[in-house]
Amino acid sequence: MATSDVTVLGAWPSPYVNRVVMALKIKSVEYELVETNPHRKSELLLKSNPVHKKVPVLIHADKTICESLIIVQYIDDAWTNGPSILPSDPYDRAIARFWAAYIDEKLRDAKEDEAKTAILEKIYEGLLLLEEAFINCSKGKAFFGGDSVGYLDIALGCQVGWLKVTEILSGAKFLDETKIPCLVRWAERLYSDSCVKDVMLETHMLLEVFNKFQAMSTAASA
Amino acid sequence: MATSDVTVLGAWPSPYVNRVVMALKIKSVEYELVETNPHRKSELLLKSNPVHKKVPVLIHADKTICESLIIVQYIDDAWTNGPSILPSDPYDRAIARFWAAYIDEKLRDAKEDEAKTAILEKIYEGLLLLEEAFINCSKGKAFFGGDSVGYLDIALGCQVGWLKVTEILSGAKFLDETKIPCLVRWAERLYSDSCVKDVMLETHMLLEVFNKFQAMSTAASA
Repeated sequence: MATSDVTVLGAWPSPYVNRVVMALKIKSVEYELVETNPHRKSELLLKSNPVHKKVPVLIHADKTICESLIIVQYIDDAWTNGPSILPSDPYDRAIARFWAAYIDEKLRDAKEDEAKTAILEKIYEGLLLLEEAFINCSKGKAFFGGDSVGYLDIALGCQVGWLKVTEILSGAKFLDETKIPCLVRWAERLYSDSCVKDVMLETHMLLEVFNKFQAMSTAASA
Repeated sequence: MATSDVTVLGAWPSPYVNRVVMALKIKSVEYELVETNPHRKSELLLKSNPVHKKVPVLIHADKTICESLIIVQYIDDAWTNGPSILPSDPYDRAIARFWAAYIDEKLRDAKEDEAKTAILEKIYEGLLLLEEAFINCSKGKAFFGGDSVGYLDIALGCQVGWLKVTEILSGAKFLDETKIPCLVRWAERLYSDSCVKDVMLETHMLLEVFNKFQAMSTAASA
């Protein structure tokens, strides 16, 4: 079921918007991305997500859904004809939800009020646990979701581009083959998977966005 | 499907443990509650939830699931014979997940590092939005979930007892019929619903627990 009554309010460099885009690609759902500046909130954004006032927002016909992981689950529930995004087994689903929530806790919430070294430490620690999670969830297959890209691949995959940017900016080495070999190879597979490779966030483009924002913020405070 | 191979690691006054207990009651699943002191973490707790080291933990045969809302969804997925906990419609499910996450953000995460007045303000604000959410979700029926107790009823219902305790301790009035009439009547219905009334957290018992902890903490610092 491909429809064109699907709109995503988002900004392409946002890892959370990227999750929604990946899920729509997997389900072959046509959509329109309405670029929405997260710093200058549009009327449509404020009306669509009055509680959090954040992207992404998915508008499907007359329905509005917010919060990236909730949107991804909605997409899986609403377009049942495409490949499944969440695992079908109740326990596997629970584990996927657990690690997805963990990713947001470690990689999103960490960024706001902590010292740089503490943040880097949290990311390292998180990736080591996620390496183990990958081994358990993938059961020897290519992705967290098995043979194809699933919920956890989306939840973590959207962060890979920004992790690489953080490596460049901080000098840290996150995607280290000696420490997390499975995750490093998993990330490479994501960037070459026919289903999502054209929506994976590219490091050089994110770096450009970052530099642009830095320049704007320097100019504003000058 | 009622089994006795279900164990909950928890402490009965915990609202998050209460969610799991409510969901098991709704599904008529027999379980054993292993009282687990959250301040003196048992070996079993550390082994079962090495990432967060927190209750509740659900152990179902050889499977271990953590995080209350994830456990409730697991219970709904694993025991399909009982009444549904999450709505069946994809959009209604998304909305239920959205507000459940909101409840945790407003009522749990608020408690950790903020001034008392800021916390009370957040709770007021949250309840006003949840009053609106109730009107939209219940569609004129008794519960968020419609005719019977569902996911959002569980997510918020577990907090009612502690809200009443906070009212007594702070002098604030949260469950105010002039401001949130639908939620006040909804809470009364929960406390008399045949399915969950015997597991709803009672104010006087929670107050006793609170006073005991206060006394212990005073003694420890004396």
